[in-house]
Amino acid sequence: MSGLRASEIREILKVTERPEVISFAGGLPTPELFPVEAIKEVNRLVLEEAGTKALQYTTTEGFPPLRKWIAERMNKQLGTHLDPDHILITHGSQQALGLSGKVFLDEGDVVLCESPTYLAAISAFRAYGCEFIEIPTDEEGMDIEALEKIVTTNDKVKAVYVIPDFQNPTGRTWSLERRKQLAAASRKYGFVVIEDNPYGELRFEGEFLPAVKAFDTEGNILCTGTFSKIFCPGYRIGWIAGDKELIRKYVLAKQGTDLQCNTIAQMEIAKYLELYNIDEHIDKIRETYRIRRDLAIRTMEQYFPEGVTFTRPEGGLFAWIELPAHINAREVLEKSLEENIAFVPGGGSFFPNGGHENTFRINFSNMPEARIEEGLQRLGKVLEGFI
Amino acid sequence: MSGLRASEIREILKVTERPEVISFAGGLPTPELFPVEAIKEVNRLVLEEAGTKALQYTTTEGFPPLRKWIAERMNKQLGTHLDPDHILITHGSQQALGLSGKVFLDEGDVVLCESPTYLAAISAFRAYGCEFIEIPTDEEGMDIEALEKIVTTNDKVKAVYVIPDFQNPTGRTWSLERRKQLAAASRKYGFVVIEDNPYGELRFEGEFLPAVKAFDTEGNILCTGTFSKIFCPGYRIGWIAGDKELIRKYVLAKQGTDLQCNTIAQMEIAKYLELYNIDEHIDKIRETYRIRRDLAIRTMEQYFPEGVTFTRPEGGLFAWIELPAHINAREVLEKSLEENIAFVPGGGSFFPNGGHENTFRINFSNMPEARIEEGLQRLGKVLEGFI
Repeated sequence: MSGLRASEIREILKVTERPEVISFAGGLPTPELFPVEAIKEVNRLVLEEAGTKALQYTTTEGFPPLRKWIAERMNKQLGTHLDPDHILITHGSQQALGLSGKVFLDEGDVVLCESPTYLAAISAFRAYGCEFIEIPTDEEGMDIEALEKIVTTNDKVKAVYVIPDFQNPTGRTWSLERRKQLAAASRKYGFVVIEDNPYGELRFEGEFLPAVKAFDTEGNILCTGTFSKIFCPGYRIGWIAGDKELIRKYVLAKQGTDLQCNTIAQMEIAKYLELYNIDEHIDKIRETYRIRRDLAIRTMEQYFPEGVTFTRPEGGLFAWIELPAHINAREVLEKSLEENIAFVPGGGSFFPNGGHENTFRINFSNMPEARIEEGLQRLGKVLEGFI
Repeated sequence: MSGLRASEIREILKVTERPEVISFAGGLPTPELFPVEAIKEVNRLVLEEAGTKALQYTTTEGFPPLRKWIAERMNKQLGTHLDPDHILITHGSQQALGLSGKVFLDEGDVVLCESPTYLAAISAFRAYGCEFIEIPTDEEGMDIEALEKIVTTNDKVKAVYVIPDFQNPTGRTWSLERRKQLAAASRKYGFVVIEDNPYGELRFEGEFLPAVKAFDTEGNILCTGTFSKIFCPGYRIGWIAGDKELIRKYVLAKQGTDLQCNTIAQMEIAKYLELYNIDEHIDKIRETYRIRRDLAIRTMEQYFPEGVTFTRPEGGLFAWIELPAHINAREVLEKSLEENIAFVPGGGSFFPNGGHENTFRINFSNMPEARIEEGLQRLGKVLEGFI
């Protein structure tokens, strides 16, 4: 158990359940866009058409029509070359990370990650006793030269973990060139890449880019995905895509973990994809989040004091704030909570090796525009007191 | 990955998907009793009443009304003293085992288990690098004296894993006395007990017995449960009950593993428990399986050759067959498959340290009576050829 620690976000979320709190702490999709009526309909249809099959055990790999849709979608959106046998359905993309730890990591192994990186990936991997080395990361992604220096001098490196699209927590997106460079380095040095892609469909502007996985020639690169951000998270249906031999290992790991994903949830999503136009649905989500991002950026520009900088994400759910080096975001959080405003401090959360106490993350996907404006104005005032 | 291996049952299940095969290999509940119409109704109601909440993220611990029902049910049926905070909702009881491995086991630790024991528990625990010592087990449960001898001489023992009710694979049930003895030994030596109880509700005859957990005074005993056998397995909703401090560790382990269980599945089951009488439903399942067990036993008595012995389970889904020592059940399986009959050989499946090639398991819950009779008659003929 020594490797496990609380997910700080979930703890803050509990504090922020009071309705008067304006919370930028979570990472929740906006619920008013969940297709409730369509889900009622597909539940009814699946139970009428498939009957008891939808309620029985099924294969670990997952429901074949859903795996087929995912492979085709990834090929179209991300430039991959997958067929359904490359896909394992997982209990959210979080399970794809947990299983990655189980498949690849032993005590003392090293995982290379962006700096900062996704909090729950740190805990998923750390449970298997690994260490992290953070690779310097800029607007275009990881510094691949810095990565290569570590790979060639540290024989404990087992895997590289990246979120190239609208990263959690920074909202940053890797350039095409860096994607190609990471794939080339993986080819050259033989390390595994775990490419986490929960937000990739939620692009507000600019061109969709191919996944790192699209440049995989050796079968060393795995790529996750999820229905949580484009359909609803309560179903807990995500996936991992990879080389068939590797996916076979994930299947064995999943059998010991929990046998299989929810049968009827998989069938309902497949039925939804058959009957409804998910692109139209995703367009609605993208448009809603784009408006909220625009407003968040505008409000921060107007009300955050000089010396505070922030990212301008082209998609996803998050933006990342850097304060002048002497300000501690945990102290800001304490003051903010007095004003009923919450966010997640970067130090102690998104940096596996600590530091960076002057940073924090905000989520802009999950609240009405008026609250975003009101909340960030209030937060601006709190920040004034620290400058 | 070195610790993982294929679930043999799942592999055999694939072979036996052809409709002409009469398969005693699975462990599936009988689908015609799944409450399809009720599930349609509770899905509709949950989406109408709870709306988008049912589709959003929720807490790792699980849906509070469901945890309350489980605590009360266990207290009533199993003699425990639990409140909702003692319960974590898991992705089937299989995940309760997977998380137990994650929480307790490190490379080289020893798990004590019944001989034989549940195949997928072996793979769940072995993934964390543990070794198994099988404790001699008779009609009344583990030989507690033998267990104490090992506990007092082997300081690598971390946990004891048992299935006291209608065990998988033998169908055996522990006596009250052995339950008390195991709890007393846990108290005396401080080891953890993982009591797996997926079948306990399915008693056909005799009195319900208290769980080992009912005699836990030190908080060392954890007990699993599941809706898979009394409702439907496709929802993947089970639980683990234990001391609050331990459950807290399981919650952290689950956060890194997959964040939480399916939200709407938990709410639908809670709504079903509110609106329908699950005791009447369980009575139907028990009656159906009792008839099938009776028929299986009668048919084996009549058609299995002398020298073949089998258990007469008081509940659950499985019976266990022992052949004369010189007969290898794998060879019997090869011949049986030629006659379109399948089962799971004991050797290589249910004994973590091998041996016992003259044993096999049959499932009697998942097929119409005519097929049970036909299948076991044919199997009897195959067995004749080996005597």
